[in-house]
Amino acid sequence: MSAPMLFIPGPTWVPEEVARAQARPMIGHRGPEFTALFEGLIPRLQAVFRTRGRVLLVTASGTGLWEAGVRSLVRRKVICLINGAFGERWAHVAQANGKEVVPVQVEWGRGLRPEHALEALAAHPDAEAITVVHNETSTGVMNPVAEIAAAVRDASPDVLILVDAVSSLGGAPLETDAWGLDFVLTSSQKCLALPPGLAFCAVSDRALAKAHEVPHRGYYFDLLTLARYAERGETPATPAISLLYAADVQLARILEEGLEVRWERHRRMAERVQAWAAERFGLFAEAGFRSWTLTCVANTRGIDVGVLNAFLRSRGKVISSGYGPLKGKTFRIAHMGEIQPHHVEELLADIEEWLRREVSG
Amino acid sequence: MSAPMLFIPGPTWVPEEVARAQARPMIGHRGPEFTALFEGLIPRLQAVFRTRGRVLLVTASGTGLWEAGVRSLVRRKVICLINGAFGERWAHVAQANGKEVVPVQVEWGRGLRPEHALEALAAHPDAEAITVVHNETSTGVMNPVAEIAAAVRDASPDVLILVDAVSSLGGAPLETDAWGLDFVLTSSQKCLALPPGLAFCAVSDRALAKAHEVPHRGYYFDLLTLARYAERGETPATPAISLLYAADVQLARILEEGLEVRWERHRRMAERVQAWAAERFGLFAEAGFRSWTLTCVANTRGIDVGVLNAFLRSRGKVISSGYGPLKGKTFRIAHMGEIQPHHVEELLADIEEWLRREVSG
Repeated sequence: MSAPMLFIPGPTWVPEEVARAQARPMIGHRGPEFTALFEGLIPRLQAVFRTRGRVLLVTASGTGLWEAGVRSLVRRKVICLINGAFGERWAHVAQANGKEVVPVQVEWGRGLRPEHALEALAAHPDAEAITVVHNETSTGVMNPVAEIAAAVRDASPDVLILVDAVSSLGGAPLETDAWGLDFVLTSSQKCLALPPGLAFCAVSDRALAKAHEVPHRGYYFDLLTLARYAERGETPATPAISLLYAADVQLARILEEGLEVRWERHRRMAERVQAWAAERFGLFAEAGFRSWTLTCVANTRGIDVGVLNAFLRSRGKVISSGYGPLKGKTFRIAHMGEIQPHHVEELLADIEEWLRREVSG
Repeated sequence: MSAPMLFIPGPTWVPEEVARAQARPMIGHRGPEFTALFEGLIPRLQAVFRTRGRVLLVTASGTGLWEAGVRSLVRRKVICLINGAFGERWAHVAQANGKEVVPVQVEWGRGLRPEHALEALAAHPDAEAITVVHNETSTGVMNPVAEIAAAVRDASPDVLILVDAVSSLGGAPLETDAWGLDFVLTSSQKCLALPPGLAFCAVSDRALAKAHEVPHRGYYFDLLTLARYAERGETPATPAISLLYAADVQLARILEEGLEVRWERHRRMAERVQAWAAERFGLFAEAGFRSWTLTCVANTRGIDVGVLNAFLRSRGKVISSGYGPLKGKTFRIAHMGEIQPHHVEELLADIEEWLRREVSG
């Protein structure tokens, strides 16, 4: 049985050439072959993060780097902007690490705005950092990180800006340096279309300087420890070498496509799916804040998404049901990673066929 | 260029069938295919850990589970038995997590004994746990965990026993249940001969109960969170699915060989390498405490290990230099994982040839 094409928000489909790279023979992680591999990845990651600064990698999911960010960069208090499940979860991770969290709750489906950050900063001038999820796959909202970051830098220049770009990096514009972001994290298995198990982050110099003031940063996700080893082309602990082989192949492919071309491909797929969804159903995310990498369809026709997905599986495809409390009320189509416009057309044609049979029929 | 055969203490050589399994098509981590994969691994991991209890897995190296153990299971104070670099590092990780560490330092190369634990427990009756590294690859010492655990249980029944079996599990006897161990961790890339990136642990019920009393356990390595998701056949964060595919194939291979047969294979290889080393050089580890999975050779002839290794590389093999302060004074031959007795013979023949040419010649 061949696995279905994944229109889910990660793990995404991995190109065969990339998948096969994982099978290369194992090497030691304290030798010259490893350092060559590691050091070959860094400039390409910098290109993807749009930074000239430090990029670190860790064997973990993006969740691990949520922990790294709040644990290494926040001594006491952090503002967490929340308009979906992942913003919520990052706040939970901060609390689980003993940090005082100021949650800024915005209705799911609505976009975050600079004023949400500014109000919280005014009320909490002792906040050291602010977290924001760029792309909320629970709701299909893409938050305006550039505008939020600009407002924060202007109002509170010392506050660090921590950004979850898990489901956007590589699929939508994100400019670490130009937007003045201090910590940007992503996962391998979303728009980068790598197997899961690696997480990458960009860290500003001032963020790393701040880490020196934060006690009990732990070890595995301590940004200072990761940075120290990275300077000599290594990782503190044995990394997932076979996944780094895959990254070596896939980052080259991404830059060969061209990062901006890749963004534009995602934008066009989003435009197509969202035009279709608006006509047939409705869109859960507020206009002006809709994601380039995932569409959250408002289930205005009350279809049984489980039945639709069973049909799609018979056609070698799979989409996502609504997330948590939105289950039943929404369903989600991810158009990220190596999904191409023709895959989207095939998917929409299959859904149309099912609608004709099951709903109209 | 084909990669050399790795006689280093991890990552170890991965069989081709296992390496290729990583290239299987990607699946979602919240669907039935994943749960089937996950739930297929658990009983086989229990067999390898020799436990009927809970086994958890996480996408990380064993270092991550060091952190999980001390952060989830120790509220304030932990005794760390140290007779090598890895015992030392685990203590450091505990400190980095804000725990008070009672270090029990034993000379590198000497074995830990029950009295080392008992003296520390007598002096620190408020210690909640004790850490011990089963197999110290920095020195070639295998510590008598069964005896130490029995003494600790007898003297201080409430103290949790945390064991690093990173470089022993699957290559030397370790009995989680029969020895009464509370937390046993290992890495994928040592005796299990999987690619790096996964870590596994067995956790006793009383250890998990203790975790409820420990605040600020974090999230990614929180044993309670991992256990809660494992109950429904999932992981809290997206795991390294391609590495789980490899584990699926390799755990079947290990149990097909037979765990006790595998231990015996390691014992015989150790016996052979250690007899050779004793004759030609010397052994760094104290008699009676020598590892089944790695031999730390005392460099009594003052050979240049770098030159030897360059020669071995030309023969498609690689060994390890001495660890940290033991560099130059020792070198290390790992005989773990899928290394077979005939590989050991080939390696020793190559070293003999080099010795004849370079040292005697």
